[in-house]
Amino acid sequence: MKRAPIPRADRSDITVLDRRTAITRVGPAGRVTDHDSVAEEEPLEVRLNGESFAVIMRTPGRDLDLAAGFLVAEGVVREPAHIATIRYCTADEDPDLRNVLDVTLSGVDPRRVLDERRRVAMTASCGLCGRTTIESLDVLGRPVDPDWTVAASIISTLPERLRAAQVGFDATGGFHAAGLFDGAGTLEELAEDVGRHNAVDKVIGRRFLRERFPIPDRLLFVSGRASFEIVQKAWLAGLACVCAVSAPSTLAVDLALSAGITLVGFVRGGSFNIYSHPERIT
Amino acid sequence: MKRAPIPRADRSDITVLDRRTAITRVGPAGRVTDHDSVAEEEPLEVRLNGESFAVIMRTPGRDLDLAAGFLVAEGVVREPAHIATIRYCTADEDPDLRNVLDVTLSGVDPRRVLDERRRVAMTASCGLCGRTTIESLDVLGRPVDPDWTVAASIISTLPERLRAAQVGFDATGGFHAAGLFDGAGTLEELAEDVGRHNAVDKVIGRRFLRERFPIPDRLLFVSGRASFEIVQKAWLAGLACVCAVSAPSTLAVDLALSAGITLVGFVRGGSFNIYSHPERIT
Repeated sequence: MKRAPIPRADRSDITVLDRRTAITRVGPAGRVTDHDSVAEEEPLEVRLNGESFAVIMRTPGRDLDLAAGFLVAEGVVREPAHIATIRYCTADEDPDLRNVLDVTLSGVDPRRVLDERRRVAMTASCGLCGRTTIESLDVLGRPVDPDWTVAASIISTLPERLRAAQVGFDATGGFHAAGLFDGAGTLEELAEDVGRHNAVDKVIGRRFLRERFPIPDRLLFVSGRASFEIVQKAWLAGLACVCAVSAPSTLAVDLALSAGITLVGFVRGGSFNIYSHPERIT
Repeated sequence: MKRAPIPRADRSDITVLDRRTAITRVGPAGRVTDHDSVAEEEPLEVRLNGESFAVIMRTPGRDLDLAAGFLVAEGVVREPAHIATIRYCTADEDPDLRNVLDVTLSGVDPRRVLDERRRVAMTASCGLCGRTTIESLDVLGRPVDPDWTVAASIISTLPERLRAAQVGFDATGGFHAAGLFDGAGTLEELAEDVGRHNAVDKVIGRRFLRERFPIPDRLLFVSGRASFEIVQKAWLAGLACVCAVSAPSTLAVDLALSAGITLVGFVRGGSFNIYSHPERIT
């Protein structure tokens, strides 16, 4: 018997890829106010038969595909017939529900899946682990020092300083790195790891174990992108400034703005973009 | 009162960054057998007062730092005094316990933390979410088609084909991409996302929802690195070949070898490295 296609909500295919954001560009020629397109990041809550199962930080769009692929990867469903329907929980009147999907399972016991989930913990050092609902993402960070500053000329030198200390990358090309720098640009802590979040956790964790924590007067530099989770980790450590070789996400910018953190991206070739609190870069 | 330093096991600082691995290099001049240094990836199980809390995929070394930083980022501990001890569970006689750490909390109720964890699910589309113990990482994939092949000349063209279809990256520089290609190099599915795992889930999930699943006769191409989770996602979809622009990890190579999957890395500038089952590349 041929089954009917799995019902899909149309708006899933409306992908919101980027958002225009006011930034400060800093380069050899000085400092200008400009705009930049920033990769969109929002949380998606996946429910199974009405009960919260997971929150995924993602770029909005193709959400039904994402939920289905995620449930395959989690081993929850193995055949298309295991998913009866996927739909947004939204009634149009509540825009907050546009980031919540409900999946109705068929031939898979949702009770068993949810109970199993409950028995276990989770994985991957992502700073959001253990959160089910979108509201619970709001982990409170530490107050950030409003008076700590760093010179633009120091920021420009960070990639070279970090790179010079990376032994693992030279060998394999397969590592992310995170470094903790003081205001003079001295690298105080470095970690390399296959996981970007792990490298940040190793750097902050070392300070924690040496009882030099929180860390209000240092900056965190990461070799890759700056996502929400990276800024959240910095916030929990009381860091006032996060710099990245690559792009930030919209949610990272939003958190940095509200937490008082200076977020810097695209630190390359002597120039960089400031996405929040540019007053900290002198 | 000055507390004593938190006891640390010495071996935490022995970082195992890479492993020499036999590979096949393919380039304009042909195919040669060689060796490559591959970034080390192993699971670390973190226990709280003896009870499993989380499994983190990481590069071995600085494990106590990682566990401490992870617990800070999870909001479990906020002050150094909250961690009384961290130690490997190992007795020397059981090498399998070298990837298990036990954290004894102080002034934080481990019951509350573990119960809260149990009430919630987790996050980030990483393919390991929900696993607590190292044993539970072993999610069973699908049999892979041993006869499906693809030409080396097609593999070399994948970066250009994927890049041409990426609209989000052009605007922001902030997206990962995943593509599903047939054996002739035709891009059939593409997804861009701030999360690498999400992009893969979106590509596989679309096939699943369209009831064209499993996917034995296509290859998955990812814009970044190939970690264990990426290969695991491919395996669960029955894919026989995973190609990446950047480096694989040791655990990704190990899984690909045992699952019968061809794993290709560093697909750049007309050449690439084959880390497992080179017979599939003709």
